[in-house]
Amino acid sequence: MHKLSTLDMTHILLSLGAMLALGRLLAELARKLNQPAVIGEIFAGIILGPTLLGSMFPDAVWFLRPTGESRLVMNGFTNIAIVLYLLVAGMDVDLKKVVRQGKTASYVGFMGVLFPFVMGYAAVMIFPNYLGYHIGVDKTVFALFFATALSISALPVIAKTLMDLNYYRTDVGMVIMTSAIFNDIVGWIIFSIILGRIGGADSMGLPVALVVLVVLLFTVLMLTVGRMAINKVLPRILAYASWPGGVLGFAVSLGLLCAAFTEWVGIHAVFGAFMAGVALGDSEHMRKRTKETLDQFVSFIFAPLFFVGIGLKVNLFENFDPLLTLVVILLAFVGKVAGCGIGARLGGMPARESLAVGFGMNARGAMEIILALLALEHGLIGEKMFVSLVIMALTTSVVSGPMMQLVLKSKRKRQIGDYLVGRAFVSHLKSSDVSGAVREMSDALAPVCGLDPREVESAVIEREKIVPTGLGFGVAIPHAKVKGMKAPAIGVAISRGGVDFNSADGLPAHLIFMILTPEDDLTSQVEILSELSRMIKNHELCERMKNARSHTELLGLLRTKEI
Amino acid sequence: MHKLSTLDMTHILLSLGAMLALGRLLAELARKLNQPAVIGEIFAGIILGPTLLGSMFPDAVWFLRPTGESRLVMNGFTNIAIVLYLLVAGMDVDLKKVVRQGKTASYVGFMGVLFPFVMGYAAVMIFPNYLGYHIGVDKTVFALFFATALSISALPVIAKTLMDLNYYRTDVGMVIMTSAIFNDIVGWIIFSIILGRIGGADSMGLPVALVVLVVLLFTVLMLTVGRMAINKVLPRILAYASWPGGVLGFAVSLGLLCAAFTEWVGIHAVFGAFMAGVALGDSEHMRKRTKETLDQFVSFIFAPLFFVGIGLKVNLFENFDPLLTLVVILLAFVGKVAGCGIGARLGGMPARESLAVGFGMNARGAMEIILALLALEHGLIGEKMFVSLVIMALTTSVVSGPMMQLVLKSKRKRQIGDYLVGRAFVSHLKSSDVSGAVREMSDALAPVCGLDPREVESAVIEREKIVPTGLGFGVAIPHAKVKGMKAPAIGVAISRGGVDFNSADGLPAHLIFMILTPEDDLTSQVEILSELSRMIKNHELCERMKNARSHTELLGLLRTKEI
Repeated sequence: MHKLSTLDMTHILLSLGAMLALGRLLAELARKLNQPAVIGEIFAGIILGPTLLGSMFPDAVWFLRPTGESRLVMNGFTNIAIVLYLLVAGMDVDLKKVVRQGKTASYVGFMGVLFPFVMGYAAVMIFPNYLGYHIGVDKTVFALFFATALSISALPVIAKTLMDLNYYRTDVGMVIMTSAIFNDIVGWIIFSIILGRIGGADSMGLPVALVVLVVLLFTVLMLTVGRMAINKVLPRILAYASWPGGVLGFAVSLGLLCAAFTEWVGIHAVFGAFMAGVALGDSEHMRKRTKETLDQFVSFIFAPLFFVGIGLKVNLFENFDPLLTLVVILLAFVGKVAGCGIGARLGGMPARESLAVGFGMNARGAMEIILALLALEHGLIGEKMFVSLVIMALTTSVVSGPMMQLVLKSKRKRQIGDYLVGRAFVSHLKSSDVSGAVREMSDALAPVCGLDPREVESAVIEREKIVPTGLGFGVAIPHAKVKGMKAPAIGVAISRGGVDFNSADGLPAHLIFMILTPEDDLTSQVEILSELSRMIKNHELCERMKNARSHTELLGLLRTKEI
Repeated sequence: MHKLSTLDMTHILLSLGAMLALGRLLAELARKLNQPAVIGEIFAGIILGPTLLGSMFPDAVWFLRPTGESRLVMNGFTNIAIVLYLLVAGMDVDLKKVVRQGKTASYVGFMGVLFPFVMGYAAVMIFPNYLGYHIGVDKTVFALFFATALSISALPVIAKTLMDLNYYRTDVGMVIMTSAIFNDIVGWIIFSIILGRIGGADSMGLPVALVVLVVLLFTVLMLTVGRMAINKVLPRILAYASWPGGVLGFAVSLGLLCAAFTEWVGIHAVFGAFMAGVALGDSEHMRKRTKETLDQFVSFIFAPLFFVGIGLKVNLFENFDPLLTLVVILLAFVGKVAGCGIGARLGGMPARESLAVGFGMNARGAMEIILALLALEHGLIGEKMFVSLVIMALTTSVVSGPMMQLVLKSKRKRQIGDYLVGRAFVSHLKSSDVSGAVREMSDALAPVCGLDPREVESAVIEREKIVPTGLGFGVAIPHAKVKGMKAPAIGVAISRGGVDFNSADGLPAHLIFMILTPEDDLTSQVEILSELSRMIKNHELCERMKNARSHTELLGLLRTKEI
């Protein structure tokens, strides 16, 4: 009987646990530096794998590079992880937007694929040796792969970046999203065919033309009949099956079965899962909550294991070829930014927005890495090319957001939590009247911001005289615009006895936010005040905040908006 | 390089997809018959596996009984599934309740373990051959296993049953939950030690006494230092890490690492995961939403794969031994119901409640099956004993809820959706006045319930005269108590033009619920009306319901309470 020994299981559990823990830690670090999480996760793999720990303590990391049985299991686990990741990514696609943004998006999508594709193909044909082409691989297949690698986009990274920057619902954002979807679909079809060709020995072994036909048929069927069938079936599942188990089971098993089908036909499993996701996500009956559950579990548990695994596979330093990497990055930037930028201009967008679209589409992120890894595993590319592609994927992703911001001259969206000053937290306010409370809070907040406490105090009191800032429900929000500040700052105080801020409901305030904003910042104050007004409608959360014992606890409550 | 072929991946994906789909389908069927989902899942395995399809079409089911590479991966996958399942089960434990229910629960817990344990041990020692004991296994170890198998309880099944029956927060419910927790912990420690002994060849190979010491130390540390440390760390993660990725990553990696530790020491991985879950779930900073995400994904995706896999492993019909099964079921019932019942009496509970506690604790469910499967895989028991234990687990679980209801003479909690009559759905109400609307709805609803439409109509109109039933927000709830009904019935009508039901906000009703309750049923009407009043506060949901095109769509919206 084939089964795993205790030692194998220990290896597997330990590896998974360590990968997840360090991956998460470094992902958080990346986030603090305004970088995508995936960069931290890959670094965790680099640290745990042959690049760093492996070369320092070859014996100590036995558990992280399992051999034989446990290696197979890890391989199967990460394969299923990618399949589920693509299922979730597919669910984020909004087909209605794809149709609505019609003209511009099709220009961007078309040029954004064509330009880098032609460039990549030509580059391999003209100087194959510079690009790590090695004898034994079909040159056309290699050129096709490299062309695809340059023309792919990373839908999840792009969507995440647009959300973070608050561009998701703007014109630029919509065009980018729609084009990226088109890009994704075309790119994956081409790549899946390439993969099917090279790894085709044990697949169905159909002729290329037939595979393309089957893929197109599958795509069309999923987007028409499949989509409609799902939209018919989902309400029945919601009405008669258990909630949310019915929908979850249906979505995941559909994704797995479609993945099995495309894998069997000879294109990669991820394509089937992605198309299943698109068809599922499009249904009006797909509840947000279900998407969230799948998304959170897959994005935070499965996907990290896959990306940490990338760093475990190769020695990134040993296989780092500076020249090759530079060439790949250059080709990637020029091809994508120029292609998409020109497409956007042709589609009628202004020059500045067109350039932003180019940089937005340039992010390759996770998709490029999945693609490179599959190519590596199938022997299509060498380890040097793999490392170059990974570095290219990271570079394009990291640069994407900041470049869009630079071009569009806009600011990252911030939340109240970002302005909270930890050292200005007053856990027991002594005063029981407004002027005393404001004085105490000014004394705590002003020095941290490099301001004069008395100036802050009088500014807040002046404002308080115009209209009292008691919001009701035991919350008050004294505030003022202050000269010489660079960014907003919020100090919080908790009063056990309560301070009468003259609120409409007559209740004394136990939770007081003092909000200071720069004199020339016209929007922050309004944004902060309206976010706080929304927040106090959650009475349970407010009650819990009034009993917070530390800045950390309060911040946790504010950020998760849940008790 | 160890990697999976295309064919292997196709097998794995197809198997997982088919298992999940059929498992879910039969779980829903089981639910309709008021049975636990796990029964449906195991039946799915019986159908797909050697018992049914396998013996009918030995060649056609190759993909469901993978060999070699893909079998190993499936094995690893289900192992990780149990570890995560126990992590989530641990999170449901409420340590404060364990302490609060002190006296009674400790009697029940103690007697509920001692009684069946002694009985099981004695039974093996007195007539070993009847119980499938076979030479080659240490008789003491076998007796210890069987004793443990009889004394274990299934926390998740018990919690689920109590919730379903609305007993969770009653005295009986609390005592049962607390005792079950005690039971679980003691049972798993004993069983883990047994497992460690028999599968000990490739584990650490520590002496038994040392293992017990390490386990106790681990348990005590997790419940004291570990618990406090987690409670300190969690607020920081909430405040500074991404949400909910930070907590999810932390919880799962902690579970995996603890599992690796206990597996390495020589007791089973599930114990470490369970204790990590208990320590995590106890923290006041663990958000409900995070537990839900983990719970839903693990319960509906991972756990079903494991339980379907049980049916795939053995031929249940071929290995069914009626006498052995009967003996096992008898011993299980007598030991547990008597033990716990006596314990509850000693703890001061009335006779009727004591008996209910006995039946409540009797459910073995998933836990027993996990335990039996591990024993089977380690060669401790044969396939016949395995089948008997599985049937015993199912029988005790199925009987538990109904017996408690019978003993306590209470009713299952029902929701509005359960009373909705599909055939009485009126998608386009023609009338625009109250009397016409009530007439149309009575015509639709009364015949289905075997009532006279005119009688229903006049009863509702009479009620309407006393106080108009327009709730506001475009919803009206005409209702009446009707002679000769057995159970409440609700008919829904949607009016595009609106009907003036004299609501306080003056808006006409577009969504009308007509509620008929039996004349002698004093509580149902109040419950239904208050549930509907709560519901209409969700304005978005109401708007969506007003546009429902069918009964199915409306029911789906009502049940998921989300759009």
